[in-house]
Amino acid sequence: MTHAIDPVELAKTLIAAPSVTPATGAVFDALEAALTPLGFTVERFIDGIEPDGPVENLLAVRAGKGPKHFAFAGHLDVVPPGVGWTGDAFAPEVRGDLLYGRGAVDMKGSIAAFVAAAAATPVDAGTISLIITGDEEGPAIFGTRALMEHMDARGVKPDMIVVGEPTSVNRLGDMVKIGRRGSVNIWIDVGGTQGHVAYPHLADNPIPRLVRILAAIDAVTLDTGNDWFQPSNIEFTDVEVGNGATNVIPASARARLSIRFNDQHRGADLVAMIERIAHDVEPNAKILGKISGEAFLTPPGELSELVAEAIHAETDVCAEMSTTGGTSDARFLHALCPVVEFGLTNATMHKLDEAVAVEDLRTLTAIYRGILVRAFA
Amino acid sequence: MTHAIDPVELAKTLIAAPSVTPATGAVFDALEAALTPLGFTVERFIDGIEPDGPVENLLAVRAGKGPKHFAFAGHLDVVPPGVGWTGDAFAPEVRGDLLYGRGAVDMKGSIAAFVAAAAATPVDAGTISLIITGDEEGPAIFGTRALMEHMDARGVKPDMIVVGEPTSVNRLGDMVKIGRRGSVNIWIDVGGTQGHVAYPHLADNPIPRLVRILAAIDAVTLDTGNDWFQPSNIEFTDVEVGNGATNVIPASARARLSIRFNDQHRGADLVAMIERIAHDVEPNAKILGKISGEAFLTPPGELSELVAEAIHAETDVCAEMSTTGGTSDARFLHALCPVVEFGLTNATMHKLDEAVAVEDLRTLTAIYRGILVRAFA
Ligand SMILES: [Zn+2]
Ligand SMILES: [Zn+2]
Repeated sequence: MTHAIDPVELAKTLIAAPSVTPATGAVFDALEAALTPLGFTVERFIDGIEPDGPVENLLAVRAGKGPKHFAFAGHLDVVPPGVGWTGDAFAPEVRGDLLYGRGAVDMKGSIAAFVAAAAATPVDAGTISLIITGDEEGPAIFGTRALMEHMDARGVKPDMIVVGEPTSVNRLGDMVKIGRRGSVNIWIDVGGTQGHVAYPHLADNPIPRLVRILAAIDAVTLDTGNDWFQPSNIEFTDVEVGNGATNVIPASARARLSIRFNDQHRGADLVAMIERIAHDVEPNAKILGKISGEAFLTPPGELSELVAEAIHAETDVCAEMSTTGGTSDARFLHALCPVVEFGLTNATMHKLDEAVAVEDLRTLTAIYRGILVRAFA
Repeated sequence: MTHAIDPVELAKTLIAAPSVTPATGAVFDALEAALTPLGFTVERFIDGIEPDGPVENLLAVRAGKGPKHFAFAGHLDVVPPGVGWTGDAFAPEVRGDLLYGRGAVDMKGSIAAFVAAAAATPVDAGTISLIITGDEEGPAIFGTRALMEHMDARGVKPDMIVVGEPTSVNRLGDMVKIGRRGSVNIWIDVGGTQGHVAYPHLADNPIPRLVRILAAIDAVTLDTGNDWFQPSNIEFTDVEVGNGATNVIPASARARLSIRFNDQHRGADLVAMIERIAHDVEPNAKILGKISGEAFLTPPGELSELVAEAIHAETDVCAEMSTTGGTSDARFLHALCPVVEFGLTNATMHKLDEAVAVEDLRTLTAIYRGILVRAFA
């Protein structure tokens, strides 16, 4: 192989380019430099302004002869390192069996493994794309969605996508995500009239109405889950009145909910349901909903099976097909074609001393290679 | 009268000595200078430390020949002037019919009127005391309660007390307070375990339990009032979680209530009731109660009647006997003997451009004089 790639060396190169979200520049230069010699056509574009941007995105395509088009999706941005690392978060270092550095597992390591797998795949086997954003950890406004518009304009249409997020839990390969719950945050504002507690008839306390609204929401069961999803869940995440004076009836009260929901619901329906409950108690309550993503499911089938087979072939591990956990860009990519998520172990993601086992990087490369072989078979 | 006192001039002198709560010094010097020539024995003492003190208190007694001992109670401290006065809050000024200045109605004006009334009362008529604190508007920890200990040590035992708070509403004399509701603030703290909204089984959200507690409290009716008191009232005054992160389940939630209660309740019983309700929902909820004062009533009788007669004689107004409004030091003094509250109109108390009608100061002096005449009759 003229262009064999060592995933550990490429991971180190990517980690060494600091890329706290939103990311642009050097880290994309490093990835482009790895992809171009492999025959990929690389397009990069920068979008957005402060504070949600600028964001860089990269689309790399290498056309093959077969009919199949396999895409790998991921992000080069990382969460801030925080204070307290043993070494420098952006100075990758192998100590013992582990490679340390911000992004080691989430997800520069996975990207390096996939590039190494692509390098080891014959050019003719099939078309391979990399859909790489610099804004997954941030607001994701100018990230993968912008990439998808770009792909649409270019006529780039993958048949299946693997997102390289760190889905493994206890050991590499033990979990593949075939869907994700949706997520919506909802704010409830109840107004009133400020006054003195000694003269309640001159005031109008919003807190009892907010309490009645929250009690009604607390009594709601959204569903009991289904074959692939746990039950949808409503959490109260904040209540705020902000009244320091013990003898004052406050003028307003606010609560915030977070709903994680399965594929039996749509975000807008949930916001409407909360609004209905609130307006039953207080017709003037103001409801604001922000949908982070809808629930989606890639039902177990061809894609999940070939991923599971590739994992089993390299590790002897039987992967669990799961829909647990937070959101990822798979929520957007699902609109294009079947998508699953599979990558490194997530124990240290977003934490101090984020690290990946060097052995895992090599095994993940072999698994991604096996996925490509099976996808193009 | 060798020592006739002009209540308007004395009110101006008192206003001119700034005395934002807690008060000491010059304003007490001014009052002592007025009382000593009238034959009063004046004792002053300073108690407490920052931030609730130091507080100055003054006890003035003029022994008479009759068996009756009449006391007037009040405070020389004032609330902060705030920003936006037409003139200087501590530069008393008569403009038109009104005397402007912080404390004009609450309650340097009333103190001046009473001193003028005492000056016009023959020394032999009966024993007169003034119980004057520098800490009524503040925490009242080193104020009237300290004065009462001092009186107890000195054997000073009044038969009746008029507190000179501004009880009049629309015109001088229209309202006398014969009791006050009690007041208690209660804090409810519910603890939990912080976590991520995507993994609720690893967390323990305290908000639903707090909501259930508040909903149960919201359903409580303490009483329906009685002949002299309006119904007791529970107000939620704050709810605080303080969680800025939309994806975090918070570790604690807190609410604060203010209960204004009539003479059918005791503060400690109400705290125990709230604790019972909270512990039914969450046995580990922490309840903190701070009782500002118990409810008290001086049932209509000799004292309220002679005050009403004196008012009617000077103004033709039939005073309403009321228990409405906030707390006053009468909550403490009630332990000594019958106590009612009567003073100037309260429309401008605690407000910008606090002012008293010059005519009201003279009429109040006549009413206080009439009260003394009737008390000693
Ligand atoms: Zn990630
Ligand atoms: Zn007052």
